[in-house]
Amino acid sequence: MDDAATPLYPADPWAVRETRFELRQARHSESVFALGNGYLGMRGTFEEGLSGGPRVSTRGTYLNGFYESGPIRYPEDAYGLARKDQTLTNVTDGQRIELLVEGERFAMDAGRLEDYARTLDLRRGVLRRELTWLSPGGRRVRLEVERLVCLTRPSVAAIRYRVTAPDGALRLELRTCLDGRVADHADPGDPRAGGAAAGRVLETVAASVHGEDVAITQRTRESGLTLACAASHRLTGGQEVARDAVPDEEAPGVRFGLRLAPGGSAVLEKTVAYVDSRAVEAGALAGLASTAAAEASALGFETLAREQAAELDAFWQDCDVIVEGDDVVQQSLRFGLLQLYQGVGRDGRASIAAKGLTGPGYQGHLFWDAELYVLPSFLYARPELARGMLLHRIRALDAARRRAAELRHAGALYPWRTIDGDEASAFFPAGTAQVHINADIAYALERYLEATGDSELLWQGGAAMLFETARFWLSRGTFVARRGGAFCLHTVTGPDEYTALVDNNFYTNLMAQEHLRFAARTAAELARAEPARFASLAAELHLDDAEPVRWLGAADRMRLPFDPELGIHCQDDGFLDKEVWDPAGIAPEERPLLLHFHPLDIYRRQVLKQPDVVQALYLREERFSRAEARRDFAYYEPLTTHDSSLSPCVHGIVAARLGQLDKAERYFRQTARMDLDDINRNVKDGVHTAAMGGAVMTVLHGFAGMRTEAGRLSFVPRLPGAWDGYRFRVALGGCRVEVAVRRDETRYRLLQGASMTLLHRLEPVTLTAGESVTRGNAPRLRAVLFDLDGVLTDTAEFHYRAWQELADRLGVPFDRAANESLRGVGRMASLERILERAERSYDDTEKARLADEKNRRYQQLIETITPADLLPGVPELLAALREAGLKVAVASASRNAPAVVRRLAIEEYVDVVVDAAEVRRGKPDPEVFSSAAEQLGVLDEDCLGIEDAEAGVAAILAAGMAAVGVGGTERVGAAHRVVADTGALDLAVLQGAFARAHAGADGGR
Amino acid sequence: MDDAATPLYPADPWAVRETRFELRQARHSESVFALGNGYLGMRGTFEEGLSGGPRVSTRGTYLNGFYESGPIRYPEDAYGLARKDQTLTNVTDGQRIELLVEGERFAMDAGRLEDYARTLDLRRGVLRRELTWLSPGGRRVRLEVERLVCLTRPSVAAIRYRVTAPDGALRLELRTCLDGRVADHADPGDPRAGGAAAGRVLETVAASVHGEDVAITQRTRESGLTLACAASHRLTGGQEVARDAVPDEEAPGVRFGLRLAPGGSAVLEKTVAYVDSRAVEAGALAGLASTAAAEASALGFETLAREQAAELDAFWQDCDVIVEGDDVVQQSLRFGLLQLYQGVGRDGRASIAAKGLTGPGYQGHLFWDAELYVLPSFLYARPELARGMLLHRIRALDAARRRAAELRHAGALYPWRTIDGDEASAFFPAGTAQVHINADIAYALERYLEATGDSELLWQGGAAMLFETARFWLSRGTFVARRGGAFCLHTVTGPDEYTALVDNNFYTNLMAQEHLRFAARTAAELARAEPARFASLAAELHLDDAEPVRWLGAADRMRLPFDPELGIHCQDDGFLDKEVWDPAGIAPEERPLLLHFHPLDIYRRQVLKQPDVVQALYLREERFSRAEARRDFAYYEPLTTHDSSLSPCVHGIVAARLGQLDKAERYFRQTARMDLDDINRNVKDGVHTAAMGGAVMTVLHGFAGMRTEAGRLSFVPRLPGAWDGYRFRVALGGCRVEVAVRRDETRYRLLQGASMTLLHRLEPVTLTAGESVTRGNAPRLRAVLFDLDGVLTDTAEFHYRAWQELADRLGVPFDRAANESLRGVGRMASLERILERAERSYDDTEKARLADEKNRRYQQLIETITPADLLPGVPELLAALREAGLKVAVASASRNAPAVVRRLAIEEYVDVVVDAAEVRRGKPDPEVFSSAAEQLGVLDEDCLGIEDAEAGVAAILAAGMAAVGVGGTERVGAAHRVVADTGALDLAVLQGAFARAHAGADGGR
Repeated sequence: MDDAATPLYPADPWAVRETRFELRQARHSESVFALGNGYLGMRGTFEEGLSGGPRVSTRGTYLNGFYESGPIRYPEDAYGLARKDQTLTNVTDGQRIELLVEGERFAMDAGRLEDYARTLDLRRGVLRRELTWLSPGGRRVRLEVERLVCLTRPSVAAIRYRVTAPDGALRLELRTCLDGRVADHADPGDPRAGGAAAGRVLETVAASVHGEDVAITQRTRESGLTLACAASHRLTGGQEVARDAVPDEEAPGVRFGLRLAPGGSAVLEKTVAYVDSRAVEAGALAGLASTAAAEASALGFETLAREQAAELDAFWQDCDVIVEGDDVVQQSLRFGLLQLYQGVGRDGRASIAAKGLTGPGYQGHLFWDAELYVLPSFLYARPELARGMLLHRIRALDAARRRAAELRHAGALYPWRTIDGDEASAFFPAGTAQVHINADIAYALERYLEATGDSELLWQGGAAMLFETARFWLSRGTFVARRGGAFCLHTVTGPDEYTALVDNNFYTNLMAQEHLRFAARTAAELARAEPARFASLAAELHLDDAEPVRWLGAADRMRLPFDPELGIHCQDDGFLDKEVWDPAGIAPEERPLLLHFHPLDIYRRQVLKQPDVVQALYLREERFSRAEARRDFAYYEPLTTHDSSLSPCVHGIVAARLGQLDKAERYFRQTARMDLDDINRNVKDGVHTAAMGGAVMTVLHGFAGMRTEAGRLSFVPRLPGAWDGYRFRVALGGCRVEVAVRRDETRYRLLQGASMTLLHRLEPVTLTAGESVTRGNAPRLRAVLFDLDGVLTDTAEFHYRAWQELADRLGVPFDRAANESLRGVGRMASLERILERAERSYDDTEKARLADEKNRRYQQLIETITPADLLPGVPELLAALREAGLKVAVASASRNAPAVVRRLAIEEYVDVVVDAAEVRRGKPDPEVFSSAAEQLGVLDEDCLGIEDAEAGVAAILAAGMAAVGVGGTERVGAAHRVVADTGALDLAVLQGAFARAHAGADGGR
Repeated sequence: MDDAATPLYPADPWAVRETRFELRQARHSESVFALGNGYLGMRGTFEEGLSGGPRVSTRGTYLNGFYESGPIRYPEDAYGLARKDQTLTNVTDGQRIELLVEGERFAMDAGRLEDYARTLDLRRGVLRRELTWLSPGGRRVRLEVERLVCLTRPSVAAIRYRVTAPDGALRLELRTCLDGRVADHADPGDPRAGGAAAGRVLETVAASVHGEDVAITQRTRESGLTLACAASHRLTGGQEVARDAVPDEEAPGVRFGLRLAPGGSAVLEKTVAYVDSRAVEAGALAGLASTAAAEASALGFETLAREQAAELDAFWQDCDVIVEGDDVVQQSLRFGLLQLYQGVGRDGRASIAAKGLTGPGYQGHLFWDAELYVLPSFLYARPELARGMLLHRIRALDAARRRAAELRHAGALYPWRTIDGDEASAFFPAGTAQVHINADIAYALERYLEATGDSELLWQGGAAMLFETARFWLSRGTFVARRGGAFCLHTVTGPDEYTALVDNNFYTNLMAQEHLRFAARTAAELARAEPARFASLAAELHLDDAEPVRWLGAADRMRLPFDPELGIHCQDDGFLDKEVWDPAGIAPEERPLLLHFHPLDIYRRQVLKQPDVVQALYLREERFSRAEARRDFAYYEPLTTHDSSLSPCVHGIVAARLGQLDKAERYFRQTARMDLDDINRNVKDGVHTAAMGGAVMTVLHGFAGMRTEAGRLSFVPRLPGAWDGYRFRVALGGCRVEVAVRRDETRYRLLQGASMTLLHRLEPVTLTAGESVTRGNAPRLRAVLFDLDGVLTDTAEFHYRAWQELADRLGVPFDRAANESLRGVGRMASLERILERAERSYDDTEKARLADEKNRRYQQLIETITPADLLPGVPELLAALREAGLKVAVASASRNAPAVVRRLAIEEYVDVVVDAAEVRRGKPDPEVFSSAAEQLGVLDEDCLGIEDAEAGVAAILAAGMAAVGVGGTERVGAAHRVVADTGALDLAVLQGAFARAHAGADGGR
């Protein structure tokens, strides 16, 4: 969008509408107003066309998966590179209708538009154009043109073209044809725009005109596909004065001459049908297309529109995501959902291209976008669409097997981009090297099975696909002795295409690990459930019992690079060494980087096109502790340019889950408005289906915090500030539930199924048929986390005594005053300070020995601790917390904590003592507190922490918890409440602090 | 070569000769018999041509650097990729002469050859073909055709075409023309064969025939270059019956009709000249070419041939490498030297393509082959040729600056492959990513300056090139805090093209480090030598005083990856983790790998196309300890496929230097016979200039062990087993010396200069004018290396006492018998054994403390050592060694060794005590011994080591030294001589052992 102040499409919950016509925006509108039904797609071009060629208006009609191919020519060739270029080709133009008014040809870019509106009706699935045109010669005519692509009839599209003579009588001519002189187009210079095959593609096999029925059969030159397109016409109103067949070989059609009386109208209904040779024998195509067109034509546009509306009613019933209080968002979500529904193939015959059926971008290729961005949008609403997408991949298994064999690998390797199942990526470092595609597909299958329990899909090829893609990993990776026998995957490219050909990409390895485990688990389950059927499958796949064991062996030893110092996962083995490139410093005119910097200059730095570790965090959240999630996001998010349309939504979801709601809302808006506001300035080539799916996912998985845990639905609902509420429906395991989130509370209603237990803010809620249950969204004090030293007891005295004894033995001056200066100072640093006053210097070995000596003495001393050493007020507080049903944890980074708790005899009051060995980073990192909360099964924001040290309070606050400080304000003043000593602590104090902590925030935030 | 048993070209020291004509070998012969003079090159095609098209016979005439360009089209494009395809284009065919015998067209592949020979005279530089042909119609004719490309006249080539009628009278027709209908050709499917631009390239501007003089002017379509080609003819003998101009626009020529009496002969001399628009204004080209052709024609072929022979006499005088006793090798070396001389441009107008001027391979591109393989072949013989090559790079500096700027880097980045200075690599991971090219060029410049002292080249642009390429590194690399502030170069590709886009490629980093230092040093030297001139240069380059300081800072902190466990340099940060791919397991039909495996499958494994660390070892030997060199070579050599023709020679040189002469000979043969035996099966596309240079370098730098040390020549001559001797001449710093190596000795003779000191086997030899000095080649006992413990003194007692005290304190049973079992066992392992009998277990911290305690006690105890603790016989032996002038070292891995030597009061007898801190790997690795020899300045093979332990003897033997064992045969029996105790050691024993050690080997090996 050039002018952010004037939105192209005004906010409307059920419509996308334009009231200005601008030539330079034409291609953008053509993508936005595209219609489709999963098989047939038509760009929102005008029936009569525009002058100026394909860079002004890119006409496009697509049949999902119908493509032309040609050789890929490399300036420097190598073995195994993708050979076959594939382009979703622009097929016969069925929408063409031209109008001559008193001999003047009507065109949007000629004469003058006195009024104009074009509306995509999201509820009814009809595109409507209305205008009054003053011709250059001064004639006035009114047009109302409606168009639909039948969601109920895969082959059919229909146009209702109404012409009115508002002033005087008019002599009109309507020329309608099936235009076979179509060409593919891609803007040069932008690798995202399209690809190699451009120009005229189809050659005509046969064409015919019989009365009002027109048909043409065309075929591709290289890929060997044939299609037939037929049209039937019905003209009503006006006075017909001529009707001529136009038997043009390349564009057969009909010419109607008619006269309109003043104020009179005529309506031409054109019904078009497409069929192609993938499903039907080529000889039968023309007949089938003609029959389909004629049948639909006989029903008439009005009837087809009613069918369409009924179909969409049902769709919205299942799939709608309703947002209250924000029509801009509502429009984006519904527009996206409709476009996805229009673009996705049905019944496994096709999947969905990155641009759906809306434009030539990315040559109409299928990427992982389908499985990871679009499939989840339908998974919990229309699982049969997800099934179809998986079935489509299953049908491409043989191609994936051939590809793996060509690359000398076992099993199957799916292509990075493709139409017909063969690899079509012409730059392998950012294509074939993205072997994670195998794991992405397996992930989608796993999620699908979890949601539906449809194990029959496994027997229909799903299991073969899963096993063949799993066995690929064993031949692609290697166990590395010098990494302790770790299973490593070298020279791969992860999701982030700004880094290529790396070792042990974290995303790839984690996803491969889960893939291998899922495959092994599935093999075991199938073998148990249906032994004979499994034995036959195993024999067919040459799968012996030992192979899943090897899969698990590789999974268990999978290298997952982690940086102990930063406490984050490494994007790959070498990533963190590279030069940091802060995207904030990159000028807007130098974005996206891929168009302005050499790949080497991008690859060599820490800069991301899209999430990589964060992508794993989104998909496999359960594999990250809360602290790791927070740190990974904090590290990688600022390095990410979002030059991929796949990027903002994932960041939005993760931000929302981490409670960073403002950030999540910013990312969400970017995702949701990607197409309508043309944020990446390339909607001209088609819409961004991944972003559309991403917007839906952000509401469900981000704002509503939806996830599944052991097959149960779990929600942590939050409400964006500008909204009044939102609701959606989720089907899982045979039940369907409506989730309605408002500011303060969430209402769950079971629409289908007898009963269901889900988690709301980690607390179980059981629903029965038809029942509504409402729960609050606000944080609720559920757990109290105690620091140990200085809060539960005071071990400072023992530290002092241990140091004093050591100092005495060494003959170093030391006393209680000197000890005070050691508060909060670590063991080695304390020793250094003490030794500053020693007579001789000590080397590192000696120092280690001395520190060890002090610690052993300290350990002896704390063995003398008794319950009497509990600080004042603590016993009473612990009892009160138990009484109030609150959970209690001790969150100390000391490895001696369990021993001290035992000595204090408060074990019965403490649910969890954090295992310090599992904590990667000490306070002020929030890890020790969020780890305690995690182990208690409580949200961080439902916790309150008590600390006596500055770093401790900082850690509590960083975890998003309420904090109570014990001691002086100078140390713990940042806490929500400060008490002088533990004697002042009681439940009321804690509740007051908790209330204060959450007072500033809205209930839902 | 298909049939290894029958060499294509019989051994001949001065000729390459074929006596069979085989169509399937035609293209190979065309490359071998190519002629050139550094500007003009002509493939050894037959004047009359062959039928069957370019895949049977690839005609080719080339002007060095004269190219056609076109756009490079990428199936998936990106910013900054090379845009301009460049092809050394096949220019006007000047050699074409057709013969009709009684109307029958003579052709090699028609009729019958009754005898046939074709000879390339290496001494005279003339190609001669002789044959008797029986036509299909039964006529017999004899042909003698000679051809030369004038080394003294850049534009000129000449053909003498003699026809004889051996039987009856014959009516002949000779058709000669300048054929402008030439095309480029590249076999499809092999990235090495050639490139994109194929088909007709030149268009004709003008053509003319005047009497016997013919001329044509042609130009390229895209690159804007024009050339003129002219021919003059002289026909003598026979009876001329017709002479017709053939004014063909595309192939102007002349037709001669003549009759030969029985036994009569006729001779047609055709003299051709080429000039092109890079040096001459386009309008003047035709005139200049005609004049050059006419002048040369007037002199006549015989005179031109004499000029040629004189020129080559001088060339061989300077450049010949004479091998006695092996004509096969002699032929290869001379063939290679001549081809290099024919291919290399003069005076900076051009450099040398990978294929010279002999074929279309690699599109005629210039690579680093020029600087690192060809330049050194001439550097010490014809330094002006090396200067021209460097000047050519200097002239391309602006293009390199533009390229760096395009990639957002400072300074200049030279292209990986190019003709005109712009990057022409269409696959950047194996092209532009090879940024080491900058350092390679700087290396060549450094070597050139060292050899010639020609600092004027620096002022002629050499310094600008050096500084601009150096400053590139600072913008390409980064200081990495988490690697201790190391300067790192990420995402580069090293020389080994079977690994791409890696971090910190060892070769690149080491070469960049040396480049930066050389640049800083040069800046300082120039500033000192000519302050004003330097100030002006610095101002022009915006080079301030601080910049060289930054260069040195980056150099000093350059990351050079090293693996401490293996004791080897890592090819890059991640290389050693990858899966090992043993080339021995790869079937011949799957080689070269690049034609049979996907790049990803190659990159992800440890497999090398060509040397990488070993390349650095060859170029920067001084940066490797002898032990590192041995280990690096032992690790990487077996992983190398030698799929690059650049590979065997470097391995041969390094093997020779490491004393692995058999291996060196195998590699040498592969290199030297690369072209004549068509080892890589692609000579059809041109010869391998790098291998030719590599063969010469192997003799000089490998077998003769030639290197420079602080500006002095140094030799360690070895003689391959099959040879009787070899000799060559070397010019350095104004002196020229002849080096003649025979079996037992080497003779040095100073041919030019007053006096010179060089090193022979690390010992200085001073030569004076005209004088010959002869030195032996055999190993000579020069140094004795003592193990410490058990050889010089016995510290075992002290170890025992230290352990005993510790055991007593811990209350663990221990005695002398138990101590015996600890012999040769390290400190921690000994402790473990002792603690096996302890009552309680000890953790790692405790154990470290205990081991430390024992060592401190041991250190106390050895303070009590006195000279009386020297073992029997040692004092006498040390005195005798000193007396005999032998050097002495103590080679112990103990860090206590210097203290013990001091206590023993033998410092005056010991030249070197190895600093154990510098030793990467203990015995049985030879490092401690070769390190001692290195510090003594003595060859390993001139040393004898004395040891009392098995691992020690193994280490000595692995270092290639003579070994004497002290103690039982069961421990030290592998030594060349074993004595029962040190009392039995004396000089005679050592000399006997040394003689025995070297008895098996030849003197020279």
